[in-house]
Amino acid sequence: MGSFKGHALPGSFFLLAGIWWTGKFSLWYATRKNKSLGSARLASRASQRRVEVIESSLILFFSFVGMVGEQFVANGPKLHLYNFADKHWEQLHIWQHTTMYLFFGLAAIVSLIIHTTEAAPVALDRLMLAIAFFNEGFLFLYHLHGRAMLDVHVHQLLLYAVFGEGLVAFLEVFHRGNIILELLRCTLTLLQGSWFWEIGFVLYPPSGSKWDMDDHNTMMFITMCYSWHLAFAMLVVAVLYYTVSCAVRSRLKRTPPMEMGLLKPRERDVESEDENL
Amino acid sequence: MGSFKGHALPGSFFLLAGIWWTGKFSLWYATRKNKSLGSARLASRASQRRVEVIESSLILFFSFVGMVGEQFVANGPKLHLYNFADKHWEQLHIWQHTTMYLFFGLAAIVSLIIHTTEAAPVALDRLMLAIAFFNEGFLFLYHLHGRAMLDVHVHQLLLYAVFGEGLVAFLEVFHRGNIILELLRCTLTLLQGSWFWEIGFVLYPPSGSKWDMDDHNTMMFITMCYSWHLAFAMLVVAVLYYTVSCAVRSRLKRTPPMEMGLLKPRERDVESEDENL
Amino acid sequence: MGSFKGHALPGSFFLLAGIWWTGKFSLWYATRKNKSLGSARLASRASQRRVEVIESSLILFFSFVGMVGEQFVANGPKLHLYNFADKHWEQLHIWQHTTMYLFFGLAAIVSLIIHTTEAAPVALDRLMLAIAFFNEGFLFLYHLHGRAMLDVHVHQLLLYAVFGEGLVAFLEVFHRGNIILELLRCTLTLLQGSWFWEIGFVLYPPSGSKWDMDDHNTMMFITMCYSWHLAFAMLVVAVLYYTVSCAVRSRLKRTPPMEMGLLKPRERDVESEDENL
Amino acid sequence: MGSFKGHALPGSFFLLAGIWWTGKFSLWYATRKNKSLGSARLASRASQRRVEVIESSLILFFSFVGMVGEQFVANGPKLHLYNFADKHWEQLHIWQHTTMYLFFGLAAIVSLIIHTTEAAPVALDRLMLAIAFFNEGFLFLYHLHGRAMLDVHVHQLLLYAVFGEGLVAFLEVFHRGNIILELLRCTLTLLQGSWFWEIGFVLYPPSGSKWDMDDHNTMMFITMCYSWHLAFAMLVVAVLYYTVSCAVRSRLKRTPPMEMGLLKPRERDVESEDENL
Repeated sequence: MGSFKGHALPGSFFLLAGIWWTGKFSLWYATRKNKSLGSARLASRASQRRVEVIESSLILFFSFVGMVGEQFVANGPKLHLYNFADKHWEQLHIWQHTTMYLFFGLAAIVSLIIHTTEAAPVALDRLMLAIAFFNEGFLFLYHLHGRAMLDVHVHQLLLYAVFGEGLVAFLEVFHRGNIILELLRCTLTLLQGSWFWEIGFVLYPPSGSKWDMDDHNTMMFITMCYSWHLAFAMLVVAVLYYTVSCAVRSRLKRTPPMEMGLLKPRERDVESEDENL
Repeated sequence: MGSFKGHALPGSFFLLAGIWWTGKFSLWYATRKNKSLGSARLASRASQRRVEVIESSLILFFSFVGMVGEQFVANGPKLHLYNFADKHWEQLHIWQHTTMYLFFGLAAIVSLIIHTTEAAPVALDRLMLAIAFFNEGFLFLYHLHGRAMLDVHVHQLLLYAVFGEGLVAFLEVFHRGNIILELLRCTLTLLQGSWFWEIGFVLYPPSGSKWDMDDHNTMMFITMCYSWHLAFAMLVVAVLYYTVSCAVRSRLKRTPPMEMGLLKPRERDVESEDENL
Repeated sequence: MGSFKGHALPGSFFLLAGIWWTGKFSLWYATRKNKSLGSARLASRASQRRVEVIESSLILFFSFVGMVGEQFVANGPKLHLYNFADKHWEQLHIWQHTTMYLFFGLAAIVSLIIHTTEAAPVALDRLMLAIAFFNEGFLFLYHLHGRAMLDVHVHQLLLYAVFGEGLVAFLEVFHRGNIILELLRCTLTLLQGSWFWEIGFVLYPPSGSKWDMDDHNTMMFITMCYSWHLAFAMLVVAVLYYTVSCAVRSRLKRTPPMEMGLLKPRERDVESEDENL
Repeated sequence: MGSFKGHALPGSFFLLAGIWWTGKFSLWYATRKNKSLGSARLASRASQRRVEVIESSLILFFSFVGMVGEQFVANGPKLHLYNFADKHWEQLHIWQHTTMYLFFGLAAIVSLIIHTTEAAPVALDRLMLAIAFFNEGFLFLYHLHGRAMLDVHVHQLLLYAVFGEGLVAFLEVFHRGNIILELLRCTLTLLQGSWFWEIGFVLYPPSGSKWDMDDHNTMMFITMCYSWHLAFAMLVVAVLYYTVSCAVRSRLKRTPPMEMGLLKPRERDVESEDENL
């Protein structure tokens, strides 16, 4: 990307995704925990599906916009890959970003199919997410040749969050609905988002005053800064989780529970299937 | 191997294996999911065993052909390992390929024994497969000394698929019959197969025009290309899975289910044993 | 820290924590094992909670003291991060230590919340502990640039204990109450504590006679020494575990079991919830 | 050790251990599988304990002999660690071997305690074994500084077996009695044993004709050789497993099963406890 905006954009995207996921998983967990109070009406299986479908559609939309945007902005490669006249590759870093978006788009498509039809096993959405993150990290890993020390370092730190998130998503294939893993994934998403912003500020400081790219002390500061971002992400997740939990409980106390018998038997089967998977 | 054909051959083998496995596991998963519709007659335990036996026999046959072929082609070492006259090793890379085939052959023999007798625990076939892939990756890892940068790079990328597949097969020892892991293994097999072809095209281009072996941009393109191969492999698996699922369901709807009581009690025991393992 | 005391202090802290945890987990395990003898009165769920609350409060207190102490001792940075006059970072290593304490403090806060309210899932305390250890190891990892060979080596050895402990704590998220993992964590805590003392003795020998920082034999000795510390830590854990087990059993034999029916139903639910998680 | 005998000795030890373990685990697995035929009389829980006690005693004995032997042979350090006169460390490599034996001895002591008393959880013996192997690998890892390329390479290959075995033993903490993991551990033990012999032959050829220590082709051959050792180890395990299985079944068919009711209730409880752990 090579610009402040180029890092702020995906950063904002991940920040939004992190906040949204934290809210979603907190709500569903609170719903499951307070089942005896009739919380099913707050997040029934049907409404959960609807939420997943909307979420996947949005991710798909943004991935598509990202792919098209990167390719067709002013200096974009416009789907050309190799310049045969001058014998050089056309802006490979933009092609790499396109590829990253592509995998998130594929994950969204699979998630859409899973939650609108019964065609595929539910756990597949987490596998696709894991693959999308591993792919992102993998491309970043071979992205950094021959840059300045600090430039390499800030991107390497990003990789901890990216690969960590891929690993957590893969664990969720086997431990679906484990709130600990879900919140950990949310935290790492937020960390990734805020660190993209940090990279923007460090490499393309809007104030104009450049950082010293090869000072060892600056690298030590940046490393520590990464820890602070993690602490900040954990704080945001904690506050969101607490707010949602309180909201659910206060709302359940105000209104009496609906009869459980009114649930259609079909719906309950699906619900338990999802939990056991 | 050192030739286009030498990479296209194992590539084709893995492509075929990937397609075959995708079809097999999709069919069995669809069968298990639609049990209530009497799908057992599409893939009864007995027929599943027969399929496994045929598959293992084929792998054993091709491994044997591969071993003999590599040794006795025109320039092969013909089972000679060390030339005492000239004091040098005889074509070690061919011996390495022979060793790779050997381990796949061993895996096939164990699979044959497991599915024709009751002598060994069922999960052993996945362990042998995992060992065969780890061995392949291990030999490739020490295969690459002193080659050009691009040559090393394309083989290193191959290792991600090989070791990844070994790991997934090892996980299947504990999670046998998990469709997510099975499809992931199919995907990685296809990826390996198509990447062997890619290696052939890059290192021994049939068109004759050589690639620049030390251009950093070419390496970045190759890395991205690997992602595309992965996306392509996922697409193939998805299409195959979907086709098989639809075929099973449409066939089950046309014919009424057979009486379950006709199954011999013996057969049902075996089936559940396999699932619980 | 750069002084003997600076390493002895955290060392003592980890040694105390290791001994305390060994006692606690041994007691609870003995209690669970001897349930039939009415051992619940030795460590009822309510008393367990009280212990956890006290432990977390102490950790929180010491983390806070550590943070404030590091910042405001004679040469501390006093919360200043960057010296704009001289354009250099203010004592980054002290800021790093502050950050390490911060994460242990956060873990303690979360543990306090979990054991005083019902707001969060119980397994979260282990995740926070795992994150605190990973963060500690992560900061140490980027701490060592440009030091003498022996200095780097002794800190690298420390990382085995730190990351090992993080991993074990993460595994406990899924296997809570597994005595093997708990004792392993205790062992690694003791190892970490005694190794901090060893680092102090090696880098800042109180006797004054310096070690040869670049002798290969000294490095080999230090490596072996690490193994001995591990053996010693295992011995301490074994002795403590055995003592507690004997004490519990001898005490249970002297006094007849209380009626189980006297337990409030509420309390028993909570207990089983914790075990199943 | 620096001699042919110094590598042949531990090699023989591991070969014997591998064969013994294969026999033991094969027998117990065959016993469990043929329970309906009354196989319990072939390997009752009481006899299993007796076997474990004898095995642990032998390991303890050999560890002790190894430790004392290494220290007090002609040129041994005789428990001296540092020569203050000449200011150098006394034969650190022998001290390292002593440390390796120490950890296997500790594992044997813990195993003895577990199988003679009820003091400790059963799974602890696998954890101690895992720690002993990790410790062995860890010491080898820092053992190799400044040696010839081939010397380093053959020892690095050994590490795959050592760390692999540590990992498998650690997995057994959670999957105790899984025959796949047990046989894998046996295979890696045999691999380790035969590879120690190989190292002896390569580094100290009894024939006297030295290997070329820096030839790249020799390294490739050695790598492949390692695969062959693995295949050989798998073959030995397979033959042993098959022999024991056949022996158990043929013996069970000849003699009619004993009444199950004769088993003391106590014994059956212990048995199931062990299996569920």
